[in-house]
Amino acid sequence: MIKAGIIGATGYAGAELARLLLDHPEVTIAGASSVSYEGKRLAEVYPAYEQFTDVVCTGEDEVIDKSDVVFAALPAGLSQPLAKKTLAAGKKFIDLGADFRLESESAYEKWYGHRWEDPALQAEAVYGMPEFFRASIKGARLVANPGCYTTAVPMAVAPLVVNHWLVDYPITCDCKSGITGAGRQLTESTHFPVINEGCHPYKIASHRHTPEMEQTLTKLAGHITEVTFVPHLIPVNRGILATCYMTLANSRTAQALHDLYRQFYADEPFVRVLPEGAVANIASVRYSNLCDVSVHFDPHTNTVITVSAIDNMVKGAAGQAIQNMNIIFDLPETTGLLHLPPAF
Amino acid sequence: MIKAGIIGATGYAGAELARLLLDHPEVTIAGASSVSYEGKRLAEVYPAYEQFTDVVCTGEDEVIDKSDVVFAALPAGLSQPLAKKTLAAGKKFIDLGADFRLESESAYEKWYGHRWEDPALQAEAVYGMPEFFRASIKGARLVANPGCYTTAVPMAVAPLVVNHWLVDYPITCDCKSGITGAGRQLTESTHFPVINEGCHPYKIASHRHTPEMEQTLTKLAGHITEVTFVPHLIPVNRGILATCYMTLANSRTAQALHDLYRQFYADEPFVRVLPEGAVANIASVRYSNLCDVSVHFDPHTNTVITVSAIDNMVKGAAGQAIQNMNIIFDLPETTGLLHLPPAF
Amino acid sequence: MIKAGIIGATGYAGAELARLLLDHPEVTIAGASSVSYEGKRLAEVYPAYEQFTDVVCTGEDEVIDKSDVVFAALPAGLSQPLAKKTLAAGKKFIDLGADFRLESESAYEKWYGHRWEDPALQAEAVYGMPEFFRASIKGARLVANPGCYTTAVPMAVAPLVVNHWLVDYPITCDCKSGITGAGRQLTESTHFPVINEGCHPYKIASHRHTPEMEQTLTKLAGHITEVTFVPHLIPVNRGILATCYMTLANSRTAQALHDLYRQFYADEPFVRVLPEGAVANIASVRYSNLCDVSVHFDPHTNTVITVSAIDNMVKGAAGQAIQNMNIIFDLPETTGLLHLPPAF
Amino acid sequence: MIKAGIIGATGYAGAELARLLLDHPEVTIAGASSVSYEGKRLAEVYPAYEQFTDVVCTGEDEVIDKSDVVFAALPAGLSQPLAKKTLAAGKKFIDLGADFRLESESAYEKWYGHRWEDPALQAEAVYGMPEFFRASIKGARLVANPGCYTTAVPMAVAPLVVNHWLVDYPITCDCKSGITGAGRQLTESTHFPVINEGCHPYKIASHRHTPEMEQTLTKLAGHITEVTFVPHLIPVNRGILATCYMTLANSRTAQALHDLYRQFYADEPFVRVLPEGAVANIASVRYSNLCDVSVHFDPHTNTVITVSAIDNMVKGAAGQAIQNMNIIFDLPETTGLLHLPPAF
Repeated sequence: MIKAGIIGATGYAGAELARLLLDHPEVTIAGASSVSYEGKRLAEVYPAYEQFTDVVCTGEDEVIDKSDVVFAALPAGLSQPLAKKTLAAGKKFIDLGADFRLESESAYEKWYGHRWEDPALQAEAVYGMPEFFRASIKGARLVANPGCYTTAVPMAVAPLVVNHWLVDYPITCDCKSGITGAGRQLTESTHFPVINEGCHPYKIASHRHTPEMEQTLTKLAGHITEVTFVPHLIPVNRGILATCYMTLANSRTAQALHDLYRQFYADEPFVRVLPEGAVANIASVRYSNLCDVSVHFDPHTNTVITVSAIDNMVKGAAGQAIQNMNIIFDLPETTGLLHLPPAF
Repeated sequence: MIKAGIIGATGYAGAELARLLLDHPEVTIAGASSVSYEGKRLAEVYPAYEQFTDVVCTGEDEVIDKSDVVFAALPAGLSQPLAKKTLAAGKKFIDLGADFRLESESAYEKWYGHRWEDPALQAEAVYGMPEFFRASIKGARLVANPGCYTTAVPMAVAPLVVNHWLVDYPITCDCKSGITGAGRQLTESTHFPVINEGCHPYKIASHRHTPEMEQTLTKLAGHITEVTFVPHLIPVNRGILATCYMTLANSRTAQALHDLYRQFYADEPFVRVLPEGAVANIASVRYSNLCDVSVHFDPHTNTVITVSAIDNMVKGAAGQAIQNMNIIFDLPETTGLLHLPPAF
Repeated sequence: MIKAGIIGATGYAGAELARLLLDHPEVTIAGASSVSYEGKRLAEVYPAYEQFTDVVCTGEDEVIDKSDVVFAALPAGLSQPLAKKTLAAGKKFIDLGADFRLESESAYEKWYGHRWEDPALQAEAVYGMPEFFRASIKGARLVANPGCYTTAVPMAVAPLVVNHWLVDYPITCDCKSGITGAGRQLTESTHFPVINEGCHPYKIASHRHTPEMEQTLTKLAGHITEVTFVPHLIPVNRGILATCYMTLANSRTAQALHDLYRQFYADEPFVRVLPEGAVANIASVRYSNLCDVSVHFDPHTNTVITVSAIDNMVKGAAGQAIQNMNIIFDLPETTGLLHLPPAF
Repeated sequence: MIKAGIIGATGYAGAELARLLLDHPEVTIAGASSVSYEGKRLAEVYPAYEQFTDVVCTGEDEVIDKSDVVFAALPAGLSQPLAKKTLAAGKKFIDLGADFRLESESAYEKWYGHRWEDPALQAEAVYGMPEFFRASIKGARLVANPGCYTTAVPMAVAPLVVNHWLVDYPITCDCKSGITGAGRQLTESTHFPVINEGCHPYKIASHRHTPEMEQTLTKLAGHITEVTFVPHLIPVNRGILATCYMTLANSRTAQALHDLYRQFYADEPFVRVLPEGAVANIASVRYSNLCDVSVHFDPHTNTVITVSAIDNMVKGAAGQAIQNMNIIFDLPETTGLLHLPPAF
């Protein structure tokens, strides 16, 4: 059994990690830390978990000490020293935060306000999006787990970008997110009467997932690829829907577009390319590590529209982190992650 | 007092007309018809209205007979004969359906499956979007009231289109709609467990509001203007949010964009151009005839993003119809329509 | 025009007062105070109100100074000194908080943790529930506006209590409330992901509206009347539904029960006793000062079940406060308050 | 592996059975029937299930033929002939409908409008509520699975009823249900704009789960026990919350009440009696077979208030049916049913 530790276990990403790890056949939760709830049982903080775990929140060092792999779900800046300490102790580190995601220090500083503490560590970190970078994840000690929007958008557009089917104009990414994406912290934009019966665009063309998306797409394309990214809050708990708009370089049939996607994702266990005519929606993937993708074509404007849907807490956070863990530990990649989503 | 009649009074648009007309100081509801509820009081069908109206649903002819102006909220095809009959009786006709909106019979036939019954009547109809076509509405006998999406999108993009600030590429319109837009009829896509906790794109690049939007924008631009239009259902009762993406022909500052919008809508009582930094959202306009618009600029992709928010049942249907009535009857345009939206 | 001031204008009750007062034909808002937003325009805090008011938040003294009547929507304890100051300045004071609601100082101290600062002022205060205590409100200088639950429950049970149709057992009051009732303050129990898809009973048999309800019912009954009161949070913005269970002292027909309610509320403009077979629900009263009541009988257990529905922010707070103001200022009681609730 | 068949597989209860059975380690789905979707794959009807099952909907006979155990989720009246046929073929039958729940034919006829087709079959049927009637379920061929409300209410009150701690007055059961309880069929009371932002009591003291509850409670008490039962629809997908009000025969401490519940359910793997001070809510049990129960005491009215929370589709339908199957087939009762509920 792999001994897993969770640092930041009482935040939403940490709590979701606990939920999924408790159901993983090859893992035991060796420790969990929480600054706010040290000394409390996790099930006291989340009564839904009562009877399923007796884990008590401790400090971080104790978690690192007891674990083979440490998952960290922390605000920006805090993972850098922890990763160093964890690797020094001979353990693996999977970071659900943003400290190791960007390959440019200046971008990290611009968007997150911190600097790199250890460039060598940054260089070692691999970006944990298995569908695109699986080979580099195998054998890694330090994984930067992608953000939620930065998972949904590349999933929706990768086949077109990789195969150079697009003209070079920016890709328009209109995303809709559930409120758990904002985490457990109380804010005006998570206050029920503000969100309920509303639809709130925010950080228009200024969300810090933008450089991360562009980094991934630029790698996949082999040349600089830019996005116009607008996120919206919608009154649901879970899910990200990415609606992406792109202009084709050459004329293609809807069938050809669809075939491209089917082939590209043919071996991916977590990606479901929907049949022609069907449309991806968040209701079909909730509580699962799946990503549904649908492909559409508007002949009158020569625009391809692709839609991807994920559960922001699973494929967009904790599930993908465990997928990365499975790869690192040479387990079948789907181990503990093949949950059938409820239909309602 | 103007005697108003509502044909199709028990559908959602008809019921909303009744609500707003009951609060209009210059109008009395002279009659209301309903195929399904003939003989019933409207307040029996909508108990929320109890004590505010004793209107009993009758047949259509009786409504026309008693009214100075007839509002019709009917499925496609049914308004054509009614409008003819109403005008012949010397009354005004305001159609909330699509029978008189499109200036091309072939487009009407393609998208709605009906043909024009009387081309002269079609030629007489004016398109009732006061902010853009006010002059032609004055004195009209027959008004085609715009659809909900076809109100929200032009409001978001008109200043740029009219002033030729855009390159000629299609405009991307990503819209999110509340469920009342689908009306009172029971369908799978209005079934609570299907919609709740979901976000459903539908009729991707194939919604029949597309030709209507393009007709409006083409008129405003003075040349053919196309849109890529994708509507989404979100789990709220009311509201349409349109997020529109456009490429500028020349470099402009955010300030210049903002000034353009402020000036363009300076005299419009129902349009609020939000201050720089603020973002339009549907929560701020519900139950009102307002349209909030915010303007944003993404310098790194040279993209303008504009967001408009309306209540689909008011500015997107019944409220705008009454705004048209006010114009026709030479009342101040805001009469009976200046409702302050609730903050929560 | 009556010059009205709002102290605590940026909380939810204060903001709702502003909304309703802006629509009141005999009132002008002379001033508004806010500790958190002093110097800001109210419409900056609530963008929904933009263009409808230029009121700027000031300190409390300025508000008192400019007003004929002061509404206060403040946490417990803060209204006592303000009321004193306001009355001393020769103005009226309507308190939406709890400082003057309880006639027993010990109850006030037990449930709210404060003491009476001025017993004479407490003695002067009248309890502002017009349907039951209208006569005492006329001419009052100081009104204690009831709480939301304490409005909904007595409305549901008063006819039976007043007419002594019940046995002496406690009345069971199972109430469901929208989240605006918890106000603008961020708390875990108003965090969207906590509330959405949940149903949370809270303060079971220990909510501080209990003594206030019992005080009202005891007065109406003429003898001590107790309640078992359990509130629940449900994922809606507005509304309180009270489902009340009582045992009849003597056998009665459903018809007789219904007639009792119809007669009791026959002259009340804001109370709608629903026809037999219909059931009150919060959707039919939102944004209005109405209270819908339905009466049901379970012959097999000899239990009367009554259901009342109000909008917690209107009849349960700001609307009722304005109803009290109308009485005090000898206006028709419904002035500015006859809003037709939307049907959806 | 047990071969399980589902009759009525495309209704909500049938679809939920499929979801849970696909995750059951000792079961394979041998067949599924659907009148509306015969010939279609189940995953076409519920795209959430795509890639998890290839089951194609057939007719009923084929399902019976291929199965060891047949689950039926059908409207009243339709299970009687099917059960007979299934037993005759030497298979087990678990009915999620109401055809075999009531021990009185006249009650069945009164509430469901059908008569018994085969009294011997009715006599053989056992009522499948394992926590109370486990012994009789072992070895059964025909199980009547309880309804959702009829699971939640007895769970909340059984310890008090069994131990005769109550006076003989009727028990007041105020229940709140999610909308999946109304099933897949389109009705006005499942139309999104009707339900959203509402709270609808319905079938007040006239819901057909009433006689079923009373039958269970009467058995547990050993004497006739009546309930006043009022269900409410709240805008959530899943969950039933039962708030039950009872009068104690003798004085008891809160501690004693709590101990009673802890002991009563000590060996029940699916029942969690919450610690004192905690309150059951539906958010903590969704997608699981758990029932959370909390116990509260109102000393000032001598009233015990107990709250139970279940997922109506799992413990209230499909999960409990599988629990019964496990018992019949001598599997550990929790097999395939220990899903940790998500915290959000």
